Amino acid sequence: MIGELDDATCWELVAASTVGRLGWVADSRVLVLPVNYVVDAGTIVIRTAPDGELSRIEDAAAELAFEVDHHDRVTGSGWSVLMGGTLTPMSEDEAAAVSGLDRVVPWAGGDRSLHLRFTPRTLSGRTVQRTRTPQS
Amino acid sequence: MIGELDDATCWELVAASTVGRLGWVADSRVLVLPVNYVVDAGTIVIRTAPDGELSRIEDAAAELAFEVDHHDRVTGSGWSVLMGGTLTPMSEDEAAAVSGLDRVVPWAGGDRSLHLRFTPRTLSGRTVQRTRTPQS
Repeated sequence: MIGELDDATCWELVAASTVGRLGWVADSRVLVLPVNYVVDAGTIVIRTAPDGELSRIEDAAAELAFEVDHHDRVTGSGWSVLMGGTLTPMSEDEAAAVSGLDRVVPWAGGDRSLHLRFTPRTLSGRTVQRTRTPQS
Repeated sequence: MIGELDDATCWELVAASTVGRLGWVADSRVLVLPVNYVVDAGTIVIRTAPDGELSRIEDAAAELAFEVDHHDRVTGSGWSVLMGGTLTPMSEDEAAAVSGLDRVVPWAGGDRSLHLRFTPRTLSGRTVQRTRTPQS
């Protein structure tokens, strides 16, 4: 069984999570890497290492994907949210004004941080529920 | 702190997980969606719904990404593995020969299944450990 999620529910689920994944194209290859994030006014603020793969995203106009999902192995239920949008670097002042960002630990660790803002242009979400017993 | 994982460790971690994410480009958009999978002889066998997004991947020659990650909020440790490769549909006979595939429940649920084999051409993995107290 699969169901669509409305936008409000998508944002609620994404706001309650802390790890998502960015997907983008570099040198004709699709890359997908986990990131820590916080939701800020309809955007996703990401903390990453300044020397990581993400710091090398060169084409700022390119559309990237941001994905968050969750699955419960016991109940077999899950959801995923997918956004398409663009990524822009943030200044330190801009990042300092984001509520809760101090609690976001960059996935790649390290002392220094690069802050990036993902601004979604598209949003979709779905719930899934596995069916253990196929029914004909 | 960030560390590279050798290929054997990557495969060990991927084999012990059940949910990963495929990333690919469709209509100039990057899509990232979760999938259930099993490792089979150096490839990733995915069960999905035959009417899902994955069934509409048209360009079989295109390189896709397959990603698996894990993070422990308590210890702050995590890992991620990223593969680049291609996706090919599997016949029912071929799928029936894959060990453990009966335990893989398609993420999208439903009665029928489409089986796809992801054959990696590239493989990389990393561990991360968050540092709670920045050190100068």
